[in-house]
Amino acid sequence: MVTEPNNWGRFGPDDQRGTLNLLTPEVVLRALGSARTGRVVSLSMPIRDRGVPHLRGRPLPQHFMALDGGDYAAGMRPIGAGLRVADDALVVSHHGTTTHMDALCHMWEGDELYNGHPAARVRSYGATRCGIEQAGGVVARGVLFDVPAHLGLDHLPASYRISASLLEEIHADVLPGDVAVIRTGWPLTWERSPDEYWSGQPGLSADAGRWLAARDVAAVASDNAAIGGLNARQLADEDLADDLHLILLHRHGIHLIEMLWLEELAGVRDFVFVAAPLRIEGGTGSPINPLAIV
Amino acid sequence: MVTEPNNWGRFGPDDQRGTLNLLTPEVVLRALGSARTGRVVSLSMPIRDRGVPHLRGRPLPQHFMALDGGDYAAGMRPIGAGLRVADDALVVSHHGTTTHMDALCHMWEGDELYNGHPAARVRSYGATRCGIEQAGGVVARGVLFDVPAHLGLDHLPASYRISASLLEEIHADVLPGDVAVIRTGWPLTWERSPDEYWSGQPGLSADAGRWLAARDVAAVASDNAAIGGLNARQLADEDLADDLHLILLHRHGIHLIEMLWLEELAGVRDFVFVAAPLRIEGGTGSPINPLAIV
Amino acid sequence: MVTEPNNWGRFGPDDQRGTLNLLTPEVVLRALGSARTGRVVSLSMPIRDRGVPHLRGRPLPQHFMALDGGDYAAGMRPIGAGLRVADDALVVSHHGTTTHMDALCHMWEGDELYNGHPAARVRSYGATRCGIEQAGGVVARGVLFDVPAHLGLDHLPASYRISASLLEEIHADVLPGDVAVIRTGWPLTWERSPDEYWSGQPGLSADAGRWLAARDVAAVASDNAAIGGLNARQLADEDLADDLHLILLHRHGIHLIEMLWLEELAGVRDFVFVAAPLRIEGGTGSPINPLAIV
Amino acid sequence: MVTEPNNWGRFGPDDQRGTLNLLTPEVVLRALGSARTGRVVSLSMPIRDRGVPHLRGRPLPQHFMALDGGDYAAGMRPIGAGLRVADDALVVSHHGTTTHMDALCHMWEGDELYNGHPAARVRSYGATRCGIEQAGGVVARGVLFDVPAHLGLDHLPASYRISASLLEEIHADVLPGDVAVIRTGWPLTWERSPDEYWSGQPGLSADAGRWLAARDVAAVASDNAAIGGLNARQLADEDLADDLHLILLHRHGIHLIEMLWLEELAGVRDFVFVAAPLRIEGGTGSPINPLAIV
Repeated sequence: MVTEPNNWGRFGPDDQRGTLNLLTPEVVLRALGSARTGRVVSLSMPIRDRGVPHLRGRPLPQHFMALDGGDYAAGMRPIGAGLRVADDALVVSHHGTTTHMDALCHMWEGDELYNGHPAARVRSYGATRCGIEQAGGVVARGVLFDVPAHLGLDHLPASYRISASLLEEIHADVLPGDVAVIRTGWPLTWERSPDEYWSGQPGLSADAGRWLAARDVAAVASDNAAIGGLNARQLADEDLADDLHLILLHRHGIHLIEMLWLEELAGVRDFVFVAAPLRIEGGTGSPINPLAIV
Repeated sequence: MVTEPNNWGRFGPDDQRGTLNLLTPEVVLRALGSARTGRVVSLSMPIRDRGVPHLRGRPLPQHFMALDGGDYAAGMRPIGAGLRVADDALVVSHHGTTTHMDALCHMWEGDELYNGHPAARVRSYGATRCGIEQAGGVVARGVLFDVPAHLGLDHLPASYRISASLLEEIHADVLPGDVAVIRTGWPLTWERSPDEYWSGQPGLSADAGRWLAARDVAAVASDNAAIGGLNARQLADEDLADDLHLILLHRHGIHLIEMLWLEELAGVRDFVFVAAPLRIEGGTGSPINPLAIV
Repeated sequence: MVTEPNNWGRFGPDDQRGTLNLLTPEVVLRALGSARTGRVVSLSMPIRDRGVPHLRGRPLPQHFMALDGGDYAAGMRPIGAGLRVADDALVVSHHGTTTHMDALCHMWEGDELYNGHPAARVRSYGATRCGIEQAGGVVARGVLFDVPAHLGLDHLPASYRISASLLEEIHADVLPGDVAVIRTGWPLTWERSPDEYWSGQPGLSADAGRWLAARDVAAVASDNAAIGGLNARQLADEDLADDLHLILLHRHGIHLIEMLWLEELAGVRDFVFVAAPLRIEGGTGSPINPLAIV
Repeated sequence: MVTEPNNWGRFGPDDQRGTLNLLTPEVVLRALGSARTGRVVSLSMPIRDRGVPHLRGRPLPQHFMALDGGDYAAGMRPIGAGLRVADDALVVSHHGTTTHMDALCHMWEGDELYNGHPAARVRSYGATRCGIEQAGGVVARGVLFDVPAHLGLDHLPASYRISASLLEEIHADVLPGDVAVIRTGWPLTWERSPDEYWSGQPGLSADAGRWLAARDVAAVASDNAAIGGLNARQLADEDLADDLHLILLHRHGIHLIEMLWLEELAGVRDFVFVAAPLRIEGGTGSPINPLAIV
């Protein structure tokens, strides 16, 4: 039984953008006011085929050079009078391998995506409903919930589930259209040991998800891999009613942004959050390099 | 003979960011002031394997669904109590196929990249000098040079090369750290006929490139495929001294952003320009979805 | 209305190999006797990203070097005391782009694959029925139908459909378990002009397909792209009852091998035909390099 | 110091095929005589993204369905009157991940490949010397050295290095043009534990490599990953003079075939060995499905 109303009524029957619709021009202009120093910080991890936090078993990005300086060193002729060029290709499955944003077609229950769009429209040639190309860019106020700092920890333990009251304690003043940025610190464990990283993950509790949805955030972003927590088999433990992806993405149309690198934001409370997912037609999400303008 | 000094002196001997260094916190804060209405516009084309402007012969992006709604329609069991998920992968060679930003390792002459970095460091496993992961995010004032509108045309003809004086006529007040956004209108020809799109491309003249470099722009962005113009064989006609990539990218460290979609910006003079290249380690560039905050 | 019985009765209800079951040890041993000179000829085209016959709009193979001699020329350190290595990756969509063999899951009508296997088992993670890994290797007598040579032509015209009586005229003595190798000569047009290659393709008529099926061939192989002919839109003109893929692959379980290069077999009547599809689990086919032992 | 003469004198200064040149028509005809029962056995492992023996850290094959039965179950319209089709793509880096054959450009020392071909010709766009497309098909007598069976073991231990005298004991009668097929049984450890599989690998000793080279075998094939043995870091322990790839591939032009599945050949002494590498232009090798005709 679904306990949350979805956004159908609020955004109209054809809505494929969910709460990104909250990013009206007024909200965007207000958000720009959160920049105080003008420092721009990347919140993404590098895209690499080794040595970066990722979910076990997922295919890591592959980066191929189609032309490079080595070819010229080996005697390849330049173009025309001497132009030299490097070219490359990227193969990427972003979920679980790098910083990315989920499309509204990424998860659902039953036969319908967010807002009643038919799941049967998500096919091998892409999603013709709720694909990431529908999302548009995110320009919003980012509100940092630095949970481990609040608790005096380097990072949360794997089994920690963040409660709504803790979120409220940290940041009672979340506004509609804000992006809630949840720091767990979990990526710090990767350096110590990939096995520790894979032992589970801390994340939001279901009531924290509902608390954020009730505050009409435009998106929820976190440095963990699934917004909610994960067990040692890298699965969510919640049942369907309490699953964080279903609460946020499926029922409320709240875009999720995962696997951020938030370690450069220590001490920051709010900032301008910008994310621009690639317009991959029919994509279930996109690798992104979110920026914080502090 | 190279006639331009490069940026070596200005940004220091190890600089791998070029003019993006001009995006100091002060410049960023000033740029945010260019947003007037708060409207956010995507300046990218969709990422697709057909039906989009691209250079002939380049491998178009491939998008594969690793799991989709069709699988559930066919009887695939959901995860746990009923969670359904769609997953995908993207294979992309961004140069010439989609909206993208060039890294400083993308083009050079001789044995050195921008700022004397050895071209021999650009190898099959990626560029360990001047890769796109060095660039960081672009938050700047975008200054639109809508050349066809200025000339009363829908789009420039293929052989048109934009002069410095025309740029000056349109926008004399370019400031250091601005992103010069050059509209040629050429993507409009694609709809009429891919063959027309492939017949050549309008672009900047060498003196226009030098004029922009002299004004210390942070980046040059255009809706054509190569900033400079192209002939019918999709090559630049300039010699090495006058090649636009060499003038801008190689000698001045000015990042180039190509294959934009600028048709939504009619009538806009300046705006906040945001581009966040994926942090592909060693990449020669990145597909991007640049945003204009108008 | 389907007019042909399928192979259900002959090979048993679980059969996923179709007529390759005809390749019993006895048939294989007999086939080896067709080698007279011991000359081994490759019947495949090169795998390349340009300059090879392919169906328009299909994604050509991409070949990336992950490590190469250029890297060492550029100063990369060898392994240990001096071992140097080159490594690569291949991205290939074989249908329509290179010499390949179709799995029995490649085409069907209604809801069932060959032999009643449910089409719903062909999912994003591969076909769990009738995938190419079920096929096994082909070692058979190849019987060459050199149609243009028989007619005194270099190659058949695009609209030519080969009749059963013509096949019978060329080779009345086809035996159960033989591979029928149909030369149209169409790949010769590619060199003259890709546009001519794309103007249509000659191929088998429906009655020729039925004639071959009635003779219990193990597979049908051709130098065209679809066994049957194609129109200028690269589609088959036959209705469902007469579609060559449905007659051969779907109803009779006859594996199809397409886009061969047969120009080296002039004057040969029969030979040992060997094809070893990669054991791609759940694959709809495989790129192959078929060998003729003449 | 290199102690073996290479094949330069024997096969001529332009030779890019090495000992595959030994597969003259006469040798091929003689080899076909090794088939006694007509049983055809695949010697390859399945191509999969999980659950198969592979070297740790290598990118496993990725198989994507571009169109499948799920799409039709979800309501996708068939082609024309009802034709349904499944299509797919494969991304594969064959070395270390699946059954494959090495090209002569795969390994070398110094600046020259096998037979003095310049290593600088192995570039990002492929090897223009000694690429796998030069190899052609292998049709030869396969001679099985079932080392663990000879020693009364299930499989050799990781540190075992097979001596020349042991090879001689098992099969003194190797002939020029034979393919030496070396069974170590090591893939059996995978089922027990991937970690055991990764703890090292048994393989040929340098003197065994020289013994085979002196007998003019056309190729050496094994069920291990590198013909020679590997330590726990998945590297060869031999110095350059004794490295198995350098002895066989580099100095003698003997093609190597690795990661076979040989468990179906128990009790067989010789057979027809067929391998048909894909004609990947400039490739460093190819995934293959070698066949044994017993």
